[in-house]
Amino acid sequence: MKLKVKEVKLSTGGPLIAILTQKDARLLDLSPGDRVLIKRPKVKKEITCVVDISSMGIKNGEIGFFEEAFKALKAKSKQQVEVNLAEKPKSIYYIKKKLEGIELSGKEINEIVKDIIANKLSEVETTYFIAACYTKGMKLREAAKLTQSIVDNGETLKFKSKVLVDKHCIGGVPGNRTTMLVVPIMAALGYKMPKTSSRSITSPAGTSDTMEVLAPVSLSTKKIKKVVNKTGGCMAWGGAVNLAAADDKLIKLRHDLSIDPLGMMLASIMAKKKSVGSTHVLIDIPWGKGSKVANKKDAIKLKKLFIKIGKLLGMKVKVVMTDGTQPVGSGIGPALECSDVIAVLKGDGPNDLREKGVFLATEMLKLLKVRRPKKKVLDILDSGKAYKKFREIIIAQGGLKRPNIPSADLFYEYKATKAGKVKEINNKQISKLARIAGAPDDKVAGMYLRVRVHNKVKKGHILFTLYAKSQTKLDNAKKYLKSIKPIIY
Amino acid sequence: MKLKVKEVKLSTGGPLIAILTQKDARLLDLSPGDRVLIKRPKVKKEITCVVDISSMGIKNGEIGFFEEAFKALKAKSKQQVEVNLAEKPKSIYYIKKKLEGIELSGKEINEIVKDIIANKLSEVETTYFIAACYTKGMKLREAAKLTQSIVDNGETLKFKSKVLVDKHCIGGVPGNRTTMLVVPIMAALGYKMPKTSSRSITSPAGTSDTMEVLAPVSLSTKKIKKVVNKTGGCMAWGGAVNLAAADDKLIKLRHDLSIDPLGMMLASIMAKKKSVGSTHVLIDIPWGKGSKVANKKDAIKLKKLFIKIGKLLGMKVKVVMTDGTQPVGSGIGPALECSDVIAVLKGDGPNDLREKGVFLATEMLKLLKVRRPKKKVLDILDSGKAYKKFREIIIAQGGLKRPNIPSADLFYEYKATKAGKVKEINNKQISKLARIAGAPDDKVAGMYLRVRVHNKVKKGHILFTLYAKSQTKLDNAKKYLKSIKPIIY
Repeated sequence: MKLKVKEVKLSTGGPLIAILTQKDARLLDLSPGDRVLIKRPKVKKEITCVVDISSMGIKNGEIGFFEEAFKALKAKSKQQVEVNLAEKPKSIYYIKKKLEGIELSGKEINEIVKDIIANKLSEVETTYFIAACYTKGMKLREAAKLTQSIVDNGETLKFKSKVLVDKHCIGGVPGNRTTMLVVPIMAALGYKMPKTSSRSITSPAGTSDTMEVLAPVSLSTKKIKKVVNKTGGCMAWGGAVNLAAADDKLIKLRHDLSIDPLGMMLASIMAKKKSVGSTHVLIDIPWGKGSKVANKKDAIKLKKLFIKIGKLLGMKVKVVMTDGTQPVGSGIGPALECSDVIAVLKGDGPNDLREKGVFLATEMLKLLKVRRPKKKVLDILDSGKAYKKFREIIIAQGGLKRPNIPSADLFYEYKATKAGKVKEINNKQISKLARIAGAPDDKVAGMYLRVRVHNKVKKGHILFTLYAKSQTKLDNAKKYLKSIKPIIY
Repeated sequence: MKLKVKEVKLSTGGPLIAILTQKDARLLDLSPGDRVLIKRPKVKKEITCVVDISSMGIKNGEIGFFEEAFKALKAKSKQQVEVNLAEKPKSIYYIKKKLEGIELSGKEINEIVKDIIANKLSEVETTYFIAACYTKGMKLREAAKLTQSIVDNGETLKFKSKVLVDKHCIGGVPGNRTTMLVVPIMAALGYKMPKTSSRSITSPAGTSDTMEVLAPVSLSTKKIKKVVNKTGGCMAWGGAVNLAAADDKLIKLRHDLSIDPLGMMLASIMAKKKSVGSTHVLIDIPWGKGSKVANKKDAIKLKKLFIKIGKLLGMKVKVVMTDGTQPVGSGIGPALECSDVIAVLKGDGPNDLREKGVFLATEMLKLLKVRRPKKKVLDILDSGKAYKKFREIIIAQGGLKRPNIPSADLFYEYKATKAGKVKEINNKQISKLARIAGAPDDKVAGMYLRVRVHNKVKKGHILFTLYAKSQTKLDNAKKYLKSIKPIIY
C-alpha cells in the first residue's frame, strides 16, 4: 500500500512510530502495536515502525512519522512510501523461549540485541526479555554473550595501544570520587584510560556531574579518541556517545521498575568497558551495612562472577572489596567532591579519599604486573605529576586552564547536641539530604562532612555543613534533617 | 510548576502522555517515562501522566497533552495547570514482589488493577506484571482476586433476575458457532443470557463477526440492558463496552508476545462473565489433536481450575469437554457460519452443529437443575420458538426483520484426487485458508466443508468449496492450498 509521508514534529524518545488512520490501518489489517515495513523503493531504504492509529492530524492516504522515524527514513514530506505489514521478528520467539526458562544461544541473544537496536522490538517486547532474564536468571555464558552482542551492535572505540586500563565501581557510597584520581594517576604513569562514566540517578553526584564542574563531559567518540591519544586519559559522560547503545535501551526499561537482573548488570558494566577496548579492568565492590552489597558473602559471589565473565570475554579483571558503610571523602555534591579531588591531587585533602585512590591505582598496577606498584603511585601523586596530568585532561576536554570551583553562599551547620563517638553514618540519608539541598543539578549544593565513624565528638562540634543555592532548598533540607538521624553518635 | 496546556492532536491508543520541553523537564528533574501529577486547582481535577520530552512542537512554559490525556484532564488550551513529579505508585512494589515469586494479597492485586485503569502504571510496568504472573505462576486464589478486581474497577451490568446464564468456549475450533444457538434457546426457555463475545483475532470468524452479518453488535451497556430485558438474550461485542476494562489492557500487552499466563486467562474469562452478573456459567473445552488443548489430561486440569475459581467467585460453573479435532458445522467464515446457524434454528443445517448446540443447552439446564432438560431443548428448537426468539433479538439489537445473508460470487471447488476415507481435518490450515480467502473482514468469504472425519470419499468428490469476494484473494487461497493438506484421506 502506498501512503504519503507526513512529518509529526514530536519525539518519542527512541521507538520508531508510524501513524495511520483507522481506515488505512483496517485496509492493511493493522492493530496498534503491530509492525509495518516502510520502503522507499528508489533508494532501497527501509525501516520497521510500530503502528499507532489516530483519527487526528493524519488524513486517509497519509502516514505520519514521529521525529525518530522521520529521521531514520530520511524521507521528505509528501513523498510516497510503500507500507506493508512486517513479519514478527524471530527474536520474539527467543524472548518467549527465555520466558520458559530455556538458556539462549549466542546467536539468539545477538538477534534480540540487533532487533532492540533496529527498533524491531517494541518497549513492551523488550520488557518481556528483561523480566524473563530477571525471573529465570541468566547463565554466566549468556551474560557474556549479551555483553558481546551489545558491543558488536554498537559503536566502538579503537586505540593503537595493546593495553587499555579501566575501572568501575558498583556504587552506592556518597562521595567516593576515585575515578578522578585514578585516571590522572594512570595516565601520568603512561597508560591509556578512556574512561566513560554515568551521571547520577539517585546519588548526589556521578563522576560526570562532578567532572562537569571543570570541563565539558558530553564528548563525541571522535573527541574522546583525540583527548585520550593526546593525554592518555579522559573522563567523559557515557550518555553522550553511542557506545553499547543497546544497553542504554535496556537500562531505561529496567529503571522503570528499578529491577536489575544480575546477568544484565554484569553485561551492562562489561559492555561499556569492552566497547572502548579495555584490556585490564579493576572493579570496586563497596560492601557492608548501608551499601548496595549488604554482606561479605554477596560481595564474594559478585567478585567471582566478574572474574569469570572477564575470562569469557578475554579481559583481565581484578576485583577489590572495599568498605561501603560510610561516605568516602568529605564533600558530597558535584563542586564539593571536585574540591576534595583537587585537594588530594595537590597532596592535601581528605585522608580516606586519598588512601582509596592510591589503593585502587596500586591494585590496577598489580593487575598489570608492575613492580613496586604503591611506590610508583605515591611518587606520581606526591610529585604533582598526577595533578599536572589532571589539568592537561581538563584542557583537552575543553575546560578552563585554571580549575575554578564555584561555592554556595548559603549554608547551615549541623552540630552535635551531645558528646559521643560516631557509630554510624547513613549513606542513604546523606544522599537524600544532599539531593534535597539541590545536588547534583545545583553544582554547589550538597554537604561537607566533618566526621567519620569512630571519631569522638564534643557537644557543639560541627558534624557537617549543608550547602545550597537557594533558601528554599536549604530550608527543605533542614526540614528533612529533622526527620532523620544521618549520623549516630 | 505552572505550565500552559497545549493540545496535541494525536492519539496514543490508551496511555496518558504529557510532553514537556527539555528545559522544563530539567527544572522538575524529570526523565522520559517519569510520572507527573497534573492539577487544575480550581476544579480539583487531577490526572497522572507519563512524561515524554520533546524539543519540537512544544515551547518552554507549555505542556502538551495527547488526545487521551487532554480529554481526561478536561482542560482548555492555554489554561494553566500545576505540574509536579508524581510519586511512584505503591502498585510498583507489588509488581516487584510478584517478580520475586511472592504471592500477592487481594488488596495488592486490586491496587495494581486500579492503577492500570487509572493509567498510573505504564505499559512497560504492566508488562512486568504479566511477565511475573507468567514466569512465577499464579495461585488460584490470586486469579480469583484478579477477577474480582477487574470486575470492581470496571463497568458492570445489573439485572433484576436472580439467575443469569452464560457460556464460554475456549476456542480453537473453526465454525463451532454454538453461542448463536444457545442464546436463543435459553432466552426462549425464559432465562436471561446477556452474552458478550469477542471478534476473531486469528480465527476466520468470532461470534461478533458472525452476528454482525444480521445486526449491529457494538451496543452500549444501556442498549445491552434494554435488549436483554426485552428479549432475554443478546449477542453483543465485548469490545464496545467498558466491562472488565482492565482485562482489555492486559490482553493487549499479552497479545504483543502471545503469552497467556494461565491465571490471567482464567481471570479474563471469568471477569467478563462476572461483570454482567452471570450466576451460572457453562464452559466448553474442545480438546484433542489440532485444538488449543492437545490432550485429555490438560483438559481435565483446566476443567478443575474453572470449577474451583467459580467456587471462589461464588458462581456455579459447569465444564464440558468436547471434540476439538475437527471443525463444527459446515460453514467457515461469518456469512457461511451464519447460514448454518439459521438452518439449525429452522430445524435443518449441519448435524454436528445442531447436536453440539442441543448438548450445550441441555448441559446448561442440568446446571440449573431443570428436569428432563434435553426434551425441553428439543421442544423449543423443533417448535420454532428458538428461531422466533433469535429474530426477536436481532430486531432488538437493531437488525433487519428478515435475516438476509449475503453470499460470494466467486468460488472454487476443492475435489478429492483419489478415493478414500477422511482421516483428519486440520483446524489450523482450514482457519488460515479461510482467512486468506478474506474472512472475517469480507463477510461472505471462507469455505463450506462437505466432509467430516470418517466420511468415505470417491475420486472427484467435492471436499469443500472456497468462497471469496475478489479474484486476487481466491487466487491467493488457491495458491496456499497447493502448499498444504487440510484434509487427509
